[in-house]
Amino acid sequence: MNLVAVCAEQTGDTLQITLNRPEARNAMSLQMVGELCQVLQAAEATAGQPDAVRVVVLRGAGGHFCAGGDLKDMAAARMQTMQKADGAEDPIAKVNAEFGALCVAYANTPLAVVAVLEGTVMGGGFGLACVADVAIATETASFRLPETSLGVVPAQIAPFLVERLGYSQAKRLAVTGGRLDAAAALHLGLVHEVTGTATVQTVLDRVLADILACAPGALAATKALMARARLETPQSLVQDAAAIFSRAAMGPEGLEGMTAFIQKRKPQWALP
Amino acid sequence: MNLVAVCAEQTGDTLQITLNRPEARNAMSLQMVGELCQVLQAAEATAGQPDAVRVVVLRGAGGHFCAGGDLKDMAAARMQTMQKADGAEDPIAKVNAEFGALCVAYANTPLAVVAVLEGTVMGGGFGLACVADVAIATETASFRLPETSLGVVPAQIAPFLVERLGYSQAKRLAVTGGRLDAAAALHLGLVHEVTGTATVQTVLDRVLADILACAPGALAATKALMARARLETPQSLVQDAAAIFSRAAMGPEGLEGMTAFIQKRKPQWALP
Amino acid sequence: MNLVAVCAEQTGDTLQITLNRPEARNAMSLQMVGELCQVLQAAEATAGQPDAVRVVVLRGAGGHFCAGGDLKDMAAARMQTMQKADGAEDPIAKVNAEFGALCVAYANTPLAVVAVLEGTVMGGGFGLACVADVAIATETASFRLPETSLGVVPAQIAPFLVERLGYSQAKRLAVTGGRLDAAAALHLGLVHEVTGTATVQTVLDRVLADILACAPGALAATKALMARARLETPQSLVQDAAAIFSRAAMGPEGLEGMTAFIQKRKPQWALP
Repeated sequence: MNLVAVCAEQTGDTLQITLNRPEARNAMSLQMVGELCQVLQAAEATAGQPDAVRVVVLRGAGGHFCAGGDLKDMAAARMQTMQKADGAEDPIAKVNAEFGALCVAYANTPLAVVAVLEGTVMGGGFGLACVADVAIATETASFRLPETSLGVVPAQIAPFLVERLGYSQAKRLAVTGGRLDAAAALHLGLVHEVTGTATVQTVLDRVLADILACAPGALAATKALMARARLETPQSLVQDAAAIFSRAAMGPEGLEGMTAFIQKRKPQWALP
Repeated sequence: MNLVAVCAEQTGDTLQITLNRPEARNAMSLQMVGELCQVLQAAEATAGQPDAVRVVVLRGAGGHFCAGGDLKDMAAARMQTMQKADGAEDPIAKVNAEFGALCVAYANTPLAVVAVLEGTVMGGGFGLACVADVAIATETASFRLPETSLGVVPAQIAPFLVERLGYSQAKRLAVTGGRLDAAAALHLGLVHEVTGTATVQTVLDRVLADILACAPGALAATKALMARARLETPQSLVQDAAAIFSRAAMGPEGLEGMTAFIQKRKPQWALP
Repeated sequence: MNLVAVCAEQTGDTLQITLNRPEARNAMSLQMVGELCQVLQAAEATAGQPDAVRVVVLRGAGGHFCAGGDLKDMAAARMQTMQKADGAEDPIAKVNAEFGALCVAYANTPLAVVAVLEGTVMGGGFGLACVADVAIATETASFRLPETSLGVVPAQIAPFLVERLGYSQAKRLAVTGGRLDAAAALHLGLVHEVTGTATVQTVLDRVLADILACAPGALAATKALMARARLETPQSLVQDAAAIFSRAAMGPEGLEGMTAFIQKRKPQWALP
């Protein structure tokens, strides 16, 4: 894969994806959106292989996570939209929907997703932070939703803000411009842990060890079931949940899990 | 408008609405419900005018926010209900639904809503506090859901409690009578900021400046989209969100926002 | 009732149900699941009687709450599943669905449910903790979701985790194995209060007094309405809420509540 706007590096079960436009605080260009999708698809396609990716770590190069959408791409799309023929596709909407599809892909992936948030976390970067299963922030992290102060709407981000923070806090942040430091982000549950820059790797390693102790298929099934539980009653899920449980218990992961438990050893999917 | 139970005073873009029955700790009479609806509709109708209202600030006269439903109105409705003919409309249900419609109107308004909560915040007042986009409490604020201890149900309030606090905390409060001081209310996210009585105006001014820095149309579109996102999946919203984004970006607010950004000045909707 | 795996003891309006397999840290056997359902049904059936149960207190014998599913029952179900004829019922799914039905029964009961959480709170015990209306933990309590590290899925628990913690925190915990001490559980809202072992009875007595000050029918109607509000918009509930309010106000509880209020005495349902 020929990557320009991101770097991707696999170590064991973990794929680190680095937003790599430090000169623009990793602003999310169209190129970057495309590459982030491509890299995730490739990682998902390794499932079942000996060197399969199980966890994706998202971070930014150069001390910032992501400054939001790239204004040059936006200006170009605006120009195209003004010049488009009646009834033709809307270039701005298309660019925006591509970013939305990116967020959905990372939100719905069966892989575990960890975000490491440093420096600027704005707009689309704020959205990606909300999508990750686990968000670790350094004390330097500073969050902002600048869209409404620029006359636009944090449209693709809004649903993920609501998922992450609940409707009420999401709405409050959007209405007031969404400025937060790391401590406030922790209080709201936007991030799950705050650490110093010097200790972020230690925290990340612990989180990765916790994730890798979980069977990958079981983890993916749990994520998928929880996404349904957000919008369905528990009683409506009892039979499906039972079928999911049985499939896991009778499958290879359930067998290995029980065997390892009886033999008082770690299961084969855990770190040695 | 001839107002008796509330005061309404506009300063710039902000309309302050004061519940004004201090002799009854601003208990919510039918009169007050009607006037609160009327004042909001009038404010919404200013949209697009040079002196348009953009933010509504709700507060109470005399050191209390609101002591809940007015017991005299309730007793009268009860009397009418006992005397009503079979099949006739139910006066208690009608009065209660009017309060519900009031909460819905303030919850769904395209305007930003800020509540300043002092002293008693009970029953219907607790409900209004949950509806506001931003809730600021003074240290004197004291919250209570007295309904179930009076043999009745916080019926119109319940959905807004669930929106504000999440299902689980809402249920816990309802089951235990919902007594909270300001610090506990902050911990639960019922309010977003707690301040001393002396500093409440400073905090309010900062919140208003944050809100007024946002383009009003973009803010309204964001609120409406988030309300949908509470009950829909992110993936189902991608295309609609993209259309909303494009409309904002290509509209006058998006143009002014981008122009102001390029010219390194504040956009025209922000405070000078 | 001939109970083996649980104890049930009524004191006034309160039924204390104790998970009683201390030799197995009260692991949830099939026998225990059955008895917990049976005891709850019997308690619900006392409604309207002079000695009616109004609150259920769930706790564990011997210093632990519950260590999760019983591994012997699981191994037996696995054996049966391997030997079952094609198309026959799936014994593992059946056992799992029975636990799910138990959680649903405690989640949807019109009675108030309080959990007292000490020592080990794992797997199914973690799920029950999420179901209770009010959860009190001692400082000794230690929470864990071990399922995915055993190759299986916290399937019946997942929806209640999402109800309790919100989707985002629930997912994060599931992905990382869900280890929490009492303070972290309080921070997330998994439990509502943390206390020392010596003071747990004092805290429980206060919570029970708060609950018993609420009219039982009103409390049940509020719980049911809030469950709907989790998945419906407030505006769609206005008319139903008004009917529920009117029914309560015009019923015996509303009458007693108003009368007691006027007479400045406690209503008859409250503790003396």
